[in-house]
Amino acid sequence: MTELFAAVDLGGTTITCALGTAGGEIVARQTFAAETYRGPDSVLERIAECVAGLGKPVALGIGVPGLVDIPNGTTLFLPNLPTQWRNIPVAAWLKGRLGCSVSIMNDARVATLGELVFGAGRGVGTMLFFTLGTGIGGGVVIDGHLRLGPLGAAGELGHQTVVSDGPLCGCGNQGCLEAVASAPALIAEGVRAMRAGLAPHLNELTGGDASLISPRTMADSNDKAIRQAVERVGRYLGIGVSNLVSALAPDLVVFGGGMSGLGERLLAPVRAEVQKRVRMMPTDHLRIEISAMGEDAGIYGGIALAKGQEKWTTATNR
Amino acid sequence: MTELFAAVDLGGTTITCALGTAGGEIVARQTFAAETYRGPDSVLERIAECVAGLGKPVALGIGVPGLVDIPNGTTLFLPNLPTQWRNIPVAAWLKGRLGCSVSIMNDARVATLGELVFGAGRGVGTMLFFTLGTGIGGGVVIDGHLRLGPLGAAGELGHQTVVSDGPLCGCGNQGCLEAVASAPALIAEGVRAMRAGLAPHLNELTGGDASLISPRTMADSNDKAIRQAVERVGRYLGIGVSNLVSALAPDLVVFGGGMSGLGERLLAPVRAEVQKRVRMMPTDHLRIEISAMGEDAGIYGGIALAKGQEKWTTATNR
Repeated sequence: MTELFAAVDLGGTTITCALGTAGGEIVARQTFAAETYRGPDSVLERIAECVAGLGKPVALGIGVPGLVDIPNGTTLFLPNLPTQWRNIPVAAWLKGRLGCSVSIMNDARVATLGELVFGAGRGVGTMLFFTLGTGIGGGVVIDGHLRLGPLGAAGELGHQTVVSDGPLCGCGNQGCLEAVASAPALIAEGVRAMRAGLAPHLNELTGGDASLISPRTMADSNDKAIRQAVERVGRYLGIGVSNLVSALAPDLVVFGGGMSGLGERLLAPVRAEVQKRVRMMPTDHLRIEISAMGEDAGIYGGIALAKGQEKWTTATNR
Repeated sequence: MTELFAAVDLGGTTITCALGTAGGEIVARQTFAAETYRGPDSVLERIAECVAGLGKPVALGIGVPGLVDIPNGTTLFLPNLPTQWRNIPVAAWLKGRLGCSVSIMNDARVATLGELVFGAGRGVGTMLFFTLGTGIGGGVVIDGHLRLGPLGAAGELGHQTVVSDGPLCGCGNQGCLEAVASAPALIAEGVRAMRAGLAPHLNELTGGDASLISPRTMADSNDKAIRQAVERVGRYLGIGVSNLVSALAPDLVVFGGGMSGLGERLLAPVRAEVQKRVRMMPTDHLRIEISAMGEDAGIYGGIALAKGQEKWTTATNR
């Protein structure tokens, strides 16, 4: 019988559980509302039930939105979840219920691991991964190894400052990439443009309902103001990419997450900015791509994490 | 007899040659005017004569300001030297004259190697090194290994964008850290302040001679305008440091080069900026220091390079 590994992607809005093979084939999956306000016990209970309902895994990997103590398998600081989620022994809890080993890691690092082990990062030496959504997470792979750093906190590529006196970010800093280039930042531009009468096509696509404005509807709009807003987000991303290219000279930059559906409209300004700003080294070998995994990198990464991270990561807590 | 290794630091203004032991003790050194306009043959001849005059090394490491083909030992693009310096087989030339093996690398990466092998980086896992002078160079050490990247071009920490529409940088980009925080950028502020009558103490220290304004005289000045200029440079450096801390979670950040003589007046705003901007991870373990090597990191790095870089670097040309 084929060994199966479980992956859990615990988000602020939804939780996805999946089972997959060692080769990264997903054989079962289920998504449900996170309702994290119900508290860790209730949520972990539902995760355990969901996984058990899918099958019997030999190991489980779970990604959570924040800082974790990787060796001990406990949460530390999850900024977008209620405070009762701090210091929860998630790995021990799920292991006790499911009877298999459980590994925990920051969700963006898990997604990077998915891209590295099963996606565009296979066989690549050095890679930057950005996950673009409500926040902007990331991960850095150096010579085939995901850099974790103390508490697995390395790779916060969305919290680079790109506008030194820019808008306040959720993290407390000003002008982070996340503050100016995440989905909420882009959508806010769409809402303003539509209300100002500058986006008649977007108005038509959404029936004038601002709550229907999303990166997807904005990608479909041919309004000049909306095209410019997407381009501006791409340029900010391009600044962040350029800074890290100058420091690390990666082979590959990959964008995943919900906003990556903007596709070429996002990549074109990113590439233009890199060409403009990275002048101290050749960049003709550098590939900048959209992830083929869409929003599933976290699930693939969970499978990789369940299989064992040792081969793919550098030492943690140092 | 103790084996001796030779180090050469080839700068735009001066060239320093030195001999040192495997343990990093410098036993002889000499500095002379670079006069690179005389062309590679003349300059390499003087380097060979200088080194031979100091003693008989078993190997030589040379740092040059630009991109090099490390495995082949040739220069590629040295932006601050005359164009006749392109594609010069420096390693083969010097090997032919001195009869010892010769290794070549970008000067800022050599300085990083010096700090890693003989300086503050000993035993440290992950380190950022900035060399602050006419330009801002750097190097990234990940888990004890200097990252080189293709052509040894990784580590261009001075060419991060910190002001997206800022002043033109020598590299062609706008708003690089180097464009707003290098010695010339700081000195230009000092000159403006003095001429505007806002720096009476600096005026006294230099006798009103703008050509005597340097990071050192500015460090000694107690004019408010000058203190603010130094602080502004420190804040820009702090933005650059913060961005890389968020991405890589290093253990140590070291500033070397001529401007590092600004000491605490530079470090204080750097640390304040890091505290303000790095919010997604604990930074209490992070050390931010001035190099004890002053401007000699390149010499120590040359010794380390001569000894053999394999133990200390990641694969190149990939």
